[in-house]
Amino acid sequence: MTKRIGIVCPGKPILRERADRVLELAARDYPQLELVLHPACTQEHGHFAGDDATRAAALLEYANDPAFDAIWFGMGGYGSARIVGEVLAGLGAAAQDKTYLGYSDCGVLLGALYKQGIGRPVHGPLVGDIRRDDGEACVRRVLDWFAGGMQGIEPGLDSRPAAAFNLMTLAMLVGTDFMPDLSGHVVLVEEVSEHLYAVDRLFFHVTQHLKGVAGIRLGEVSDVPENDRPFGYDEEEIARYWCEKAGIAYLGRAQIGHSAANRIVPFGLA
Amino acid sequence: MTKRIGIVCPGKPILRERADRVLELAARDYPQLELVLHPACTQEHGHFAGDDATRAAALLEYANDPAFDAIWFGMGGYGSARIVGEVLAGLGAAAQDKTYLGYSDCGVLLGALYKQGIGRPVHGPLVGDIRRDDGEACVRRVLDWFAGGMQGIEPGLDSRPAAAFNLMTLAMLVGTDFMPDLSGHVVLVEEVSEHLYAVDRLFFHVTQHLKGVAGIRLGEVSDVPENDRPFGYDEEEIARYWCEKAGIAYLGRAQIGHSAANRIVPFGLA
Repeated sequence: MTKRIGIVCPGKPILRERADRVLELAARDYPQLELVLHPACTQEHGHFAGDDATRAAALLEYANDPAFDAIWFGMGGYGSARIVGEVLAGLGAAAQDKTYLGYSDCGVLLGALYKQGIGRPVHGPLVGDIRRDDGEACVRRVLDWFAGGMQGIEPGLDSRPAAAFNLMTLAMLVGTDFMPDLSGHVVLVEEVSEHLYAVDRLFFHVTQHLKGVAGIRLGEVSDVPENDRPFGYDEEEIARYWCEKAGIAYLGRAQIGHSAANRIVPFGLA
Repeated sequence: MTKRIGIVCPGKPILRERADRVLELAARDYPQLELVLHPACTQEHGHFAGDDATRAAALLEYANDPAFDAIWFGMGGYGSARIVGEVLAGLGAAAQDKTYLGYSDCGVLLGALYKQGIGRPVHGPLVGDIRRDDGEACVRRVLDWFAGGMQGIEPGLDSRPAAAFNLMTLAMLVGTDFMPDLSGHVVLVEEVSEHLYAVDRLFFHVTQHLKGVAGIRLGEVSDVPENDRPFGYDEEEIARYWCEKAGIAYLGRAQIGHSAANRIVPFGLA
């Protein structure tokens, strides 16, 4: 049976040629999958793939369409926070039984869906990750998973429920109306393009809000900008420091991040 | 009567020559003030003015010394979050009746002191602001205020209690053990060196946490980095958008920011 997957962009747009590469790859090698790119994905409205109303409507259109089995987020960037309230308010019955897959900024939506118990939120590569070195392997990891394969799953997941987030995205989500209860969860975090002092600051904030989780695992912290001075602690020292201060177990590294190595983490139990 | 003011650096160190310029200015023109630079202010430990224990001990030494009337923070940068818990735990009786003045990263300490009802937290220029164009006027604003002058006070303050923060600093503070109750307060926020999409993201987070405040006023949003695309909304549109979504009154602009124009905002009633 064919699985029908709708691609939408809640934040930045995706370049048409990148989307086409993934559509062609899927058409060629995954006959059991049918990918459909929402036309709003390539719109441009300032930073965004269309204005807030356009992006919310696009997501709602596909999420509420029973002909789709899954929503695959095309790009992150920024923008999910601006539509999450409208999206939650507009989701109907057909949205309940879908998979929603993406990461980075899309973590706002994944977290909010998880809080509401709507569908199956999954952290994993975006369509736009095709642009990366080794991007095809990255995107195939998602296509394989949609097709029923399990080899793309983050290898450290265990019998405890999990959730995975970009650290900044999680920091902006905690304490809001859209933050799920992660008590008892192993929380995987990753970061990109932030100074280490900013990563430290984010850990201060997030660990204060995550008391009660089963532990934190640290993904990649990549593309750290050069600062005028070294921070003095590396990312793992930072994670250990704040976990210890907050009484949270630090559970080691995780294979998630803003790179082609980013693995799949279904929210809850895999 | 001479007012004795201790300078400490909870985050980054201050360059000796900059501190000396301010000490000389005060010695020459403000005989009623005596400024004392803590020796740890010029230490270097990675990003910081000494390691966490050194910075916490320096602040506690001066805050707990009854010979000091005020603590003036020398530099921001980042680092207050790493010592705020230890500082609060170590403050004694002599710390209760002091003024604590600074801004930016120091907002973590100002907020925590305000929460605990310790001393008089005041948002205002740092010693290190002497480095700015027109930095002498900026620093004189604080010296005048320490000497009893009122012309440096932010001109829009009214009969409602106020508090002022760097937006990122406030975003990292909300929901933590150190966040004061700002119900009924006018909250002034400013930002520097953040992309507008990041400012938008911070407003999403902060407005979710500030329900119950009397309103928000927007200070400078300066040194916004060039992005690969325009964001599509300016900083005031961002502030209005999120205030409206959260049911918070947007009360217009404020004269605070990472510039020599940064005014003084006593926490609570001026």
